[in-house]
Amino acid sequence: MDEPLSHLRAQIDEVDQAMLDLLARRLGLVAQVGEVKGRHGLPIYAPDRERAMIAARREQAADRGVPPDLIEDVLRRCMREAYVHEKNMGFTQQAPDLGPVVVVGGAGAMGAMFARMLTLSGYAVRTLDRDDWHRAAAVVEGAGLVLVSVPIHDTVEVIGALPPLPADCVLADLTSVKRAPVAAMMQAHAGPVLGLHPMFGPDVDSFAKQVVASCPGRDPDASAWLVEQIRLWGARVHDVTAADHDAAMGLIQALRHFSTFAYGAHLASEDRGLADLLALSSPIYRLELIMVGRLFAQSPELYFDIIAAGPDNLELIERYHARFGEALELLRSGDAEGFTRRFTEIGEWFGSYAERFLEESRSLLAHADSTR
Amino acid sequence: MDEPLSHLRAQIDEVDQAMLDLLARRLGLVAQVGEVKGRHGLPIYAPDRERAMIAARREQAADRGVPPDLIEDVLRRCMREAYVHEKNMGFTQQAPDLGPVVVVGGAGAMGAMFARMLTLSGYAVRTLDRDDWHRAAAVVEGAGLVLVSVPIHDTVEVIGALPPLPADCVLADLTSVKRAPVAAMMQAHAGPVLGLHPMFGPDVDSFAKQVVASCPGRDPDASAWLVEQIRLWGARVHDVTAADHDAAMGLIQALRHFSTFAYGAHLASEDRGLADLLALSSPIYRLELIMVGRLFAQSPELYFDIIAAGPDNLELIERYHARFGEALELLRSGDAEGFTRRFTEIGEWFGSYAERFLEESRSLLAHADSTR
Repeated sequence: MDEPLSHLRAQIDEVDQAMLDLLARRLGLVAQVGEVKGRHGLPIYAPDRERAMIAARREQAADRGVPPDLIEDVLRRCMREAYVHEKNMGFTQQAPDLGPVVVVGGAGAMGAMFARMLTLSGYAVRTLDRDDWHRAAAVVEGAGLVLVSVPIHDTVEVIGALPPLPADCVLADLTSVKRAPVAAMMQAHAGPVLGLHPMFGPDVDSFAKQVVASCPGRDPDASAWLVEQIRLWGARVHDVTAADHDAAMGLIQALRHFSTFAYGAHLASEDRGLADLLALSSPIYRLELIMVGRLFAQSPELYFDIIAAGPDNLELIERYHARFGEALELLRSGDAEGFTRRFTEIGEWFGSYAERFLEESRSLLAHADSTR
Repeated sequence: MDEPLSHLRAQIDEVDQAMLDLLARRLGLVAQVGEVKGRHGLPIYAPDRERAMIAARREQAADRGVPPDLIEDVLRRCMREAYVHEKNMGFTQQAPDLGPVVVVGGAGAMGAMFARMLTLSGYAVRTLDRDDWHRAAAVVEGAGLVLVSVPIHDTVEVIGALPPLPADCVLADLTSVKRAPVAAMMQAHAGPVLGLHPMFGPDVDSFAKQVVASCPGRDPDASAWLVEQIRLWGARVHDVTAADHDAAMGLIQALRHFSTFAYGAHLASEDRGLADLLALSSPIYRLELIMVGRLFAQSPELYFDIIAAGPDNLELIERYHARFGEALELLRSGDAEGFTRRFTEIGEWFGSYAERFLEESRSLLAHADSTR
């Protein structure tokens, strides 16, 4: 019985090695593409080319009796790798004549990431950190961009402490709240001002498909090159007012992180062995536990800042706590009809997204299954 | 400039088509493996073979300058497909001389899934549903296994209404709570009793890597074949007492689903455009929204049952609500130190899992990025 099996497995191993060779070849070709793109100033993320390519392969797969989702998932995984490669390829400089770029807080992870990308794009990058504040005036001399990337609770103070900047210098920040920092920048500098919020951590593979929120300050034409540069890196730049941004972040970041914190606190207090919980967890529940536990491997200060930064976040979270209490009432009174009614209303609010999300989650969970 | 690019892209397309051919060949070989496994009664999920195979490819990848994670992800995706194929291959029947299997509630999705798997494994499967209850006695005549798969809130009643079963017949259920159903089965039947809880929905690709909780009732030897059969299908069977199971489910299922419900209620009440939120959401936040929204594409009754079924769930959720309130106090008083202290305590409770979860989430989020 082992004989036929090991024979078949030997053949599978051959196929997999051939696959490995193809992947190696593909990476080589992709590296050349990145090089060409870099030379001609093309963005590394080309959605149309991606769509067309995947559609073509899906069709061929169907003809060959291969599940189209299989080839699509494999190709997407390869493309992800491609972006990582391309991101180190160098990028066309959108503002070739710009004076030096100064990253304030360049020693921090996010600041360092932008410093790297700007250097890769041909800019002369200087960094300014706490220790060398005494020479701040010299560092910003002739600067074409000053990019503030410091902890949220220091941002306004640091902006206020900046030395005078060249009149045409762009002053921008990367803080995850926007109202206060943009206001502070408008006050500190009479020239071009732009508020940015990269909606991702400094540990992402690449900018490809990531989102950067962009909040208007002053003289947008003067900072248009910066927005273009970030698009070239692969990110989607989304324009939004500082007020709308901060309100959305309350829901997207503050409430989410805080309830994850509370959930972790509850798990720790209930203190059922995590190993036992995991042993009973299918991939989907494992995923939920992962999304909670991962928080606590990160910086408490950062998360407290994110949660406490938005002036309206506390009230938002208090409203959630109150609504949770109202929902609990349905459970306490065993009101199945009331629960179902509310459930349906919420489903109507989600509209077609609910179905779409269920679909998307299937693919994600299948992936979680396969990495288990 | 387009010229060199389109030339390179043509080569990439060639590589991808070659990849497609390999995938087709691989699926063919895998189908043969499944067929051999089925003939010789081998489980479709072979963790050791999987590990060894991946380790070998990772090494070769490193030698060829291919990121080992790339080949591992591609192979795991292929193996996931393999399980889906193999699951339809048929399985060795673990109890060849068993009388007919009766699935009570065989019309339901979960019941139908087990009926299918049992049929694929060579058992004579009958189903018993509400409409044909009048001939229940005839249906269970000579049965070797009666498997109850009905809505949670009907389970105990349905078990009580079962006709007398053959003395050596195994009585088992698939309910997602276990104390009450197991007790009811012990009372309804003097023979072998086994409580089962498949920790997954009827829409999974296959049993491979899924978890089935198994709670002892009476005479485990008599139902050992059933546990073995489920293992053959690829699932991990985890033994746990009914009490521990229900307590764990309170955390794993009830609290999780309920807070997702409350979170959805909050989003709907705050009523910020979902499209705007998504436009500002990087893949990680999109994932969070997906995990909330997906709930509301599903059955409210099912979820109310899951949440309300466990007798202790209400108190568990009330404790969570109270702890959420305590955590809010830290925010209200702007107590960053207190938050950090608690955050660190929770991190200690998670121990090495926090880091591991952060790692796992990276791969998952990268996957989410690439499907965005």
